[in-house]
Amino acid sequence: MAIALIVLAAGQGTRMNSDLPKVLHRLGGAPLFAHALAAGRGLEPERVIVVAGHGAEAVTKAVAKADPEAQIVLQTEQLGTGHAVAQALPALAGFEGRVLVLYGDTPFIRPETLEALAASSADVTVLGFEATDPGRYGRLIAEGEALERIVEFKDATDQERAITLCNSGVIACDAGLLSELVAGLGNDNAAGEYYLTDIVAAARARGLSAEVATCPEAETLGINTRAELARAEALFQARMRDEALENGVTMVDPGTVWFALDTYLGRDVVLGPHVVFGPGVTVESGAQIEAFCHLEGCHISRGATVGPFARLRPGAELAEEVHIGNFVEVKNAILGEGVKVGHLTYLGDAEVGEGTNIGAGTITCNYDGVFKHRTTIGANAFIGSDTMLVAPVTVGAGAMTGSGSTITEDVPPGAVALGRAKQVTKPGLATKLFEMLRARKAALKKGS
Amino acid sequence: MAIALIVLAAGQGTRMNSDLPKVLHRLGGAPLFAHALAAGRGLEPERVIVVAGHGAEAVTKAVAKADPEAQIVLQTEQLGTGHAVAQALPALAGFEGRVLVLYGDTPFIRPETLEALAASSADVTVLGFEATDPGRYGRLIAEGEALERIVEFKDATDQERAITLCNSGVIACDAGLLSELVAGLGNDNAAGEYYLTDIVAAARARGLSAEVATCPEAETLGINTRAELARAEALFQARMRDEALENGVTMVDPGTVWFALDTYLGRDVVLGPHVVFGPGVTVESGAQIEAFCHLEGCHISRGATVGPFARLRPGAELAEEVHIGNFVEVKNAILGEGVKVGHLTYLGDAEVGEGTNIGAGTITCNYDGVFKHRTTIGANAFIGSDTMLVAPVTVGAGAMTGSGSTITEDVPPGAVALGRAKQVTKPGLATKLFEMLRARKAALKKGS
Amino acid sequence: MAIALIVLAAGQGTRMNSDLPKVLHRLGGAPLFAHALAAGRGLEPERVIVVAGHGAEAVTKAVAKADPEAQIVLQTEQLGTGHAVAQALPALAGFEGRVLVLYGDTPFIRPETLEALAASSADVTVLGFEATDPGRYGRLIAEGEALERIVEFKDATDQERAITLCNSGVIACDAGLLSELVAGLGNDNAAGEYYLTDIVAAARARGLSAEVATCPEAETLGINTRAELARAEALFQARMRDEALENGVTMVDPGTVWFALDTYLGRDVVLGPHVVFGPGVTVESGAQIEAFCHLEGCHISRGATVGPFARLRPGAELAEEVHIGNFVEVKNAILGEGVKVGHLTYLGDAEVGEGTNIGAGTITCNYDGVFKHRTTIGANAFIGSDTMLVAPVTVGAGAMTGSGSTITEDVPPGAVALGRAKQVTKPGLATKLFEMLRARKAALKKGS
Repeated sequence: MAIALIVLAAGQGTRMNSDLPKVLHRLGGAPLFAHALAAGRGLEPERVIVVAGHGAEAVTKAVAKADPEAQIVLQTEQLGTGHAVAQALPALAGFEGRVLVLYGDTPFIRPETLEALAASSADVTVLGFEATDPGRYGRLIAEGEALERIVEFKDATDQERAITLCNSGVIACDAGLLSELVAGLGNDNAAGEYYLTDIVAAARARGLSAEVATCPEAETLGINTRAELARAEALFQARMRDEALENGVTMVDPGTVWFALDTYLGRDVVLGPHVVFGPGVTVESGAQIEAFCHLEGCHISRGATVGPFARLRPGAELAEEVHIGNFVEVKNAILGEGVKVGHLTYLGDAEVGEGTNIGAGTITCNYDGVFKHRTTIGANAFIGSDTMLVAPVTVGAGAMTGSGSTITEDVPPGAVALGRAKQVTKPGLATKLFEMLRARKAALKKGS
Repeated sequence: MAIALIVLAAGQGTRMNSDLPKVLHRLGGAPLFAHALAAGRGLEPERVIVVAGHGAEAVTKAVAKADPEAQIVLQTEQLGTGHAVAQALPALAGFEGRVLVLYGDTPFIRPETLEALAASSADVTVLGFEATDPGRYGRLIAEGEALERIVEFKDATDQERAITLCNSGVIACDAGLLSELVAGLGNDNAAGEYYLTDIVAAARARGLSAEVATCPEAETLGINTRAELARAEALFQARMRDEALENGVTMVDPGTVWFALDTYLGRDVVLGPHVVFGPGVTVESGAQIEAFCHLEGCHISRGATVGPFARLRPGAELAEEVHIGNFVEVKNAILGEGVKVGHLTYLGDAEVGEGTNIGAGTITCNYDGVFKHRTTIGANAFIGSDTMLVAPVTVGAGAMTGSGSTITEDVPPGAVALGRAKQVTKPGLATKLFEMLRARKAALKKGS
Repeated sequence: MAIALIVLAAGQGTRMNSDLPKVLHRLGGAPLFAHALAAGRGLEPERVIVVAGHGAEAVTKAVAKADPEAQIVLQTEQLGTGHAVAQALPALAGFEGRVLVLYGDTPFIRPETLEALAASSADVTVLGFEATDPGRYGRLIAEGEALERIVEFKDATDQERAITLCNSGVIACDAGLLSELVAGLGNDNAAGEYYLTDIVAAARARGLSAEVATCPEAETLGINTRAELARAEALFQARMRDEALENGVTMVDPGTVWFALDTYLGRDVVLGPHVVFGPGVTVESGAQIEAFCHLEGCHISRGATVGPFARLRPGAELAEEVHIGNFVEVKNAILGEGVKVGHLTYLGDAEVGEGTNIGAGTITCNYDGVFKHRTTIGANAFIGSDTMLVAPVTVGAGAMTGSGSTITEDVPPGAVALGRAKQVTKPGLATKLFEMLRARKAALKKGS
């Protein structure tokens, strides 16, 4: 059956104490809303509609980046979840199938749960969970899977409050019926808001069927404060670490490795303590990443070794057996098989052929103050220490550059390029200079 | 009422297993004694007297640095808390008002607690706490706030041992009375020491009033071993992290961020994992500090981004929108709005005008072996990669330096300065050199 | 009495989900098998025999590195512990004394436990432990120290299952008797394997004595999954951290310091957060290591300060009062008293005399593409920033090199060596270049 998703992402999240809209705070390196979206993507929905409100401009931009196919609709006033869904209805025009309503601040919902929810054939299906401490959640009055009604905590009798099956707010409903039911919602309540869950009562009143699908309570965890976000991040990381261990990743100290939502690590990858993965990293089997590394948007092939103290930025592509050592930054650069970059180097906007050795202190001077330029180095070249490669520039295969050279012109294959002054040695001069400096210091001390 | 503080800081702390006097071990980047002192400073005391003993020279130096107005008195023999206070009495000469006696190894006492203690109108007031496990603490026999007497554990009856209100040792008393009572103390006990708390019995014997002020047990936590210090540090950090979250700071992993006593972070500051704050750091709202940064004595303005792998040392002042990248060290340097220092750079003893770009590998050569010198760079300049700025030197606004240049003379505004040899390229030479080196290697292998 | 060790290290460890044989996974920086071996070495055994099987080539290499005197025997088929010991018997030829059989995947066994086991005079002695949750362990049916028999869980009566004294598998037996008993083992069981522990029943059937020695359950912890390995690492690190605190090491955050099996730290060593010790590090009393340091195979003397962001690699030897600053790598280099290496430097294959200052950005160019060469610097020299030292090269005592120089020839003591082009300044050129670049950018924008 065709599926559409509506993701509610309009709230400000006052308790976050932040200028940033709540759904843009990050979990596993991705904005909060992207987690529910990623789970929903598992259903291969025909349409995805995100309802933005507070900070709509920033949210729109972030959604476009995370999911270019998603439509964004605006909720200019925050009048409740029913009102939010109403804003999304025009974007559903012409869609026939099942609509799922998700929440941008509920990141732990799993694809399997949404599949079960979507598969339910009732007119309206509500996602419920057995709460350890039901507190002030709305209760689901159900007979097996058949949902009779939802009771808000404040309206519940003592007997109803004893029920532990609670309302997550996530709902599935056919598109046409959803439109009708939402159109009929009222706001005759203390807050003057339109509540989406009131559609259950409306459906039942029309003699339609309602059901409950359930999931573990942990999947319904919402984020309202920074402390809750920090705990959610800890949960997310714990799950990623456990999965990595099961998949055959070696981690000296799992608790100090930080994953992004999309980190991919092959079997027998070895990670030292204190490794941080930003978004978009894939590491092939058997590669090794030492302590204190920071990686983002890069690919590391089989047998490569990285760090300690290495930073790989977006566009870094390391072929097999590449070695990246300490205090090295690589950005938007493709390194061929067996390339070695041992120390204190910046490679940006570059391509390096296989087997080439990059000396310590090498820098690709890729920026002229206005434009960025590329550096190309052939295979089996030898770049001497402290070589400045003033891009655009090409060093041919099997070429060498002398230590301390600034290379501004292309170097043909097999050539040596040097750009340095001859050494001049002045006997005895250091002794004299030291004497002079120390005498001045002594004079200053005396004078003071 | 006028307030004076006496802070007892003479103990060696044998169980620390250290040559360093106990009160100089650090908590939150500050010596232990500085915490009690900071809490006491909240009362705006007229006099602050620190009693030093073990390691008095080092303690004196540290106290002078932490609080230049504090007086330091020596206790050459360690004959108990009463004896320690006796050494402080001459320094109270002429003072009229309330004296509070605090402990250098009890860092968690709060200003509010000391205020309540100081406000008590009894002749002698003792700070007590309800102990979860009273163990061998002295017990306070009280009727409401009225303190009858203090019973040492070893002298207590079973009934008295059942009391959970315990003696923290912190005492408040008028200056004149304190002098009299301390002068009358004896040392007729097993340890042969003079105990400050004996002044309560002495006061009561003279028909004077004694009271109890109370605080949570956690405030009275004393440090005796390195393991206790490590736990105290964990408690301190947990408190700082919780406060930061409440104040609207975003931390990917709060548990890996280390604060100093005086760290100030604005709202919506974003911190990656593994950030270490030394003393004296202020970060304005919305600045971002990536993973693996080490900061001390610096100021970071709104919109600035720092790291990963950045080190800011004392005197680093970053204006708005400054960017500091990886493997960059900044010390005693003022960076104007929008300055960018992306990679592998040392800026020390420098001033950089707004909008200037500092190329990778740039170094301010600020030290000549004896003296340190300053580097000044104007606005909107472009410092090429691997520029050595041999201080003292000035680069004017809008000027450029060529990559790989050593700049020893001032560069006027708008000028280009170059200091590098022309590139010489020798065709085919690399091929010959590699052949020669490999032949030699083969010969060596054959020979071995 | 003469002792021989047999360490069983042939298993694949299927549940590790790894190509690496289980006993080569690392704990405290050393392969798993090395821990049992180190404990056994405490008995000063005459012979050490390691039984390798899965990944025998890699295991053989690792054993040879960890313990060059150990003999390695192969178990080509994995037919049980009895079969594994049988493979080791030929290597025991001519040995008279006590044989202990240990396990390569049981790293926490302590030397004291093995001593007690070796000291037992029974014909066969089995190491047992009181299990908190005995689960499916074999039970030891004993009367005091006298061991009657071992019952496998599946064969045990309810009464026997209530016994909590369990079999660790570690066994001691005289060499001659062990050979006889192992030769008599059968494999008439469900798995068709030869079980070493069956020798107890065989011994008892011959009227020989059997005893139990016991140890805490924690010592018998075996490793079967990566999650178990991660927990074992956490236990190992916790033990090392506690010991370090007791020995008078200061750690701001013990939980972020990672030790190797052989890390040695003197009293009053100060460690910042996030310090990683690889194998082979010794640090003398009072040295200080700041946050974010990575050390391996190096020695740090009294009063030296290292980091933050420093990497010391094998062969780094720091004399007293040496200072290593940020983004500095030292490898196979001996630094004399008071040498300062403050920033962004690579020192490899070098020797530096006392009191010498190494400027920021200095690099020893030790590799010519085929060979490695040494750099020698005398005492009280001053190496200017960004000096390239093209090895082999010697800089004499009290000499200076100019910033930005490439030094290819030896510098005599007291001389100044310079290798840089004279600065050329072109007035107004930067202004023109910026105008040109910006005009081109504007044109591109217009065109697009």
